[in-house]
Amino acid sequence: MYGPKCATRTLRPNATRSFSTTSRFQAPSSLSINAGRLWETLHKTCEWGASHRYGENTRDTGMARLTLNDDDARVRRWFADEVQKLGCSLSVDQMGNMFARQSGKLGSSAPMIAMGSHLDTQPRGGRYDGILGVMAALEVLRTMKENNFQTMFDVGIVNWTNEEGARFPKSMCSSGVWAGAIPIEKAWNLRDIHNPDVSLKSELERHGYLGDIECSPKGYPLAAHFELHIEQGPILPANERKIGIVQGAQGYRWLTLTVQGKDAHTGTTPLENRHDPLLAASRMIAASNDIAKKHGALASTGIIRVPSNASTNTIASEVAFTLDIRHPDDHVVNTVQDECLNAFDSIASQDGKGVSYNWTIDTDSPAVKFDKNCIACIKAAADHLVGPEKSMLMTSGAGHDSVYTSQQCPTAMIFIPCKDGVSHHPTEYSTPEDCALGTQALLEAVVHYDQSRAYEGNVI
Amino acid sequence: MYGPKCATRTLRPNATRSFSTTSRFQAPSSLSINAGRLWETLHKTCEWGASHRYGENTRDTGMARLTLNDDDARVRRWFADEVQKLGCSLSVDQMGNMFARQSGKLGSSAPMIAMGSHLDTQPRGGRYDGILGVMAALEVLRTMKENNFQTMFDVGIVNWTNEEGARFPKSMCSSGVWAGAIPIEKAWNLRDIHNPDVSLKSELERHGYLGDIECSPKGYPLAAHFELHIEQGPILPANERKIGIVQGAQGYRWLTLTVQGKDAHTGTTPLENRHDPLLAASRMIAASNDIAKKHGALASTGIIRVPSNASTNTIASEVAFTLDIRHPDDHVVNTVQDECLNAFDSIASQDGKGVSYNWTIDTDSPAVKFDKNCIACIKAAADHLVGPEKSMLMTSGAGHDSVYTSQQCPTAMIFIPCKDGVSHHPTEYSTPEDCALGTQALLEAVVHYDQSRAYEGNVI
Repeated sequence: MYGPKCATRTLRPNATRSFSTTSRFQAPSSLSINAGRLWETLHKTCEWGASHRYGENTRDTGMARLTLNDDDARVRRWFADEVQKLGCSLSVDQMGNMFARQSGKLGSSAPMIAMGSHLDTQPRGGRYDGILGVMAALEVLRTMKENNFQTMFDVGIVNWTNEEGARFPKSMCSSGVWAGAIPIEKAWNLRDIHNPDVSLKSELERHGYLGDIECSPKGYPLAAHFELHIEQGPILPANERKIGIVQGAQGYRWLTLTVQGKDAHTGTTPLENRHDPLLAASRMIAASNDIAKKHGALASTGIIRVPSNASTNTIASEVAFTLDIRHPDDHVVNTVQDECLNAFDSIASQDGKGVSYNWTIDTDSPAVKFDKNCIACIKAAADHLVGPEKSMLMTSGAGHDSVYTSQQCPTAMIFIPCKDGVSHHPTEYSTPEDCALGTQALLEAVVHYDQSRAYEGNVI
Repeated sequence: MYGPKCATRTLRPNATRSFSTTSRFQAPSSLSINAGRLWETLHKTCEWGASHRYGENTRDTGMARLTLNDDDARVRRWFADEVQKLGCSLSVDQMGNMFARQSGKLGSSAPMIAMGSHLDTQPRGGRYDGILGVMAALEVLRTMKENNFQTMFDVGIVNWTNEEGARFPKSMCSSGVWAGAIPIEKAWNLRDIHNPDVSLKSELERHGYLGDIECSPKGYPLAAHFELHIEQGPILPANERKIGIVQGAQGYRWLTLTVQGKDAHTGTTPLENRHDPLLAASRMIAASNDIAKKHGALASTGIIRVPSNASTNTIASEVAFTLDIRHPDDHVVNTVQDECLNAFDSIASQDGKGVSYNWTIDTDSPAVKFDKNCIACIKAAADHLVGPEKSMLMTSGAGHDSVYTSQQCPTAMIFIPCKDGVSHHPTEYSTPEDCALGTQALLEAVVHYDQSRAYEGNVI
């Protein structure tokens, strides 16, 4: 796979914090993003889909801009206009992924370096998850344009369709198709969770976003993929760091457990005669937490469901719950799953006359290691901007489009802190300063990467 | 409170199994209920509300005859016709309770001896719970009529409105109003759980069942209340008994626990940073079972709810669950509740950054002891019919209209076995033989009671 060796060759071993003066390759000192413009643009575009007011100020809302709803179509049209104003070409592939491309100095037809993320949100989402990554990328291109700065190779932006998987239930959907991990027919055929008459493909057609370009690295190749994102967790603020240099993403596996018992009257059925699936599920959830804790892993249950006719005085007939196991090492994910299932076997016969259960794996996302050169370019930017005391290497806890792009092109991510680690929530918040810092880091990392690439290719 | 002393004076101390020949008071030997007619009537009337087919035979269905729906109105009209054909007077009170009354030999205006239960069902209920009690009472009156047998005092049937509390959420609703335990305005104002525009009162009016008679022992006094019911549990079959002589009902208390946490991303939030209400609720449910087991009590959770926007990769913000605690001794119910709340306090701070919780008592039904003379009359009937080896004294695990009537008049219940102890389920089943045996026991108990009452009152 093509990729400059940023860490070992491009950056001087003794590079100090002042990257812009000590690195071989540097952005012009004037190349500084416009923090105010970034902030205004971010929030102005959030008027499309603003929802879930939590405060009195105009912008004290969350977002409900679900994939390919009318607001998502509006922000897409706006985005298309803005990148074309900058002189970018715009391509749309068969999944509605939008590729904005700014020509580099070299006039090379080689793949562009992409800054990508997504404009869709959760139904009760916030204003930063995904959106910041696209708006930061736009701010980077605007900054370059107004400074008459041209990268060597082409550089651009990707807006990935349906990252959240909230309306059409497959997360990181279109980067997954692009990477070859999700068959396009399956993705096209995803149904609106509230209206099975509507498919992702029918919504692409309705809004004019069913492009001709094959959704693949062959259809639209990328030289690299950089993504700025909010951390969505408490680690950066807890460690008083401003920039996270994301080396990879932890593996995760989602299971659904279905526990079958037998409905019975709570007043007339002795404990020893019961097949109580809710009691068993409760013990299973508690056990999975204990097992994960022992291994330094995560195990979480977000959903538990009893039948719709459940009542206070009836033992449920069946209970279903989800189990989300995560760890940066796939081997540990496997171990936690195995130990959980062993524990569940014991629990199933522990109370009364026992229960039966079955389980399915709904999602299995192996751990990902990002590209060391992309990481090095971000580290150089972070060192320049805040120094190693205020940045840190970290592993993403959540999935992102970069997890899929990393299968096909050099990829890494930049995290910035978000308040209290809260995301997927209307009150999700990052400060204007942190958004600006992350955007400046994105710009500098991309410039680094571009210059390293040119150097490696002996074109400069 | 008025009541004959059936056990100590009416029955000879040396009464043997052959009650009909050894008791001072006896039904004529020809007074035997018609098992076939009972069975046919029971299932014919179940055509109104039949639902939830589980087998191929016509009657292989459960019931969905919710209080005052159109099918409930149909069976009420049918019931009114049938009792009037027998020469009964029919009265309807302000809660739609139906009182059918057959005159006794004495022509006394004293309160009638009632056989009562209910014709409404759960939404996924069966063909026996409640329905059997009313149809058995009708069969008793039919048997008396065709044998030209008259009790001394008036005897009759009560069809209590909304025993299940499934459509209008208050169980044993109208016997509760009658007993003075539930204010009538509150009962009238209960809303259909699926349609808040419809109240219990508006449905009484729609079907012409909003009677003039005050719903109280003053409005319609009862001398006694006998109720035949399926056991709804496994104790009779487990002990190979055919008739349960129900001495009372266990106390029960229903709580709703609401556990508040904080929604957070499962992938990005370390275990030690979480406020996870579903994990805490799971530990609470498991703990409540352990505590109840220690005390020989019952503790059950039938309902658990996460927010509607719950997802696999989000820690829930709040979880609510029900807790149903039961024991024949109120003191034990209190102890179990206290120990559960103590355990919940510890659990609330056990994991991560902890959770908070609050609790409400939704229903508190103290333990009930039924009338010893009514019990003695049922015991005499059971001894006569199956002998002490095939009957047993027991405590009702469930609530019944008799729990409320016992607050105002001498009351006891007869249980018969139901298959696998299953009730509140379409497959609920009792054999024709057991239904007939219970009905015969009801007849004989009522005749006993009537004759004892007349003897006590020196009218025979």
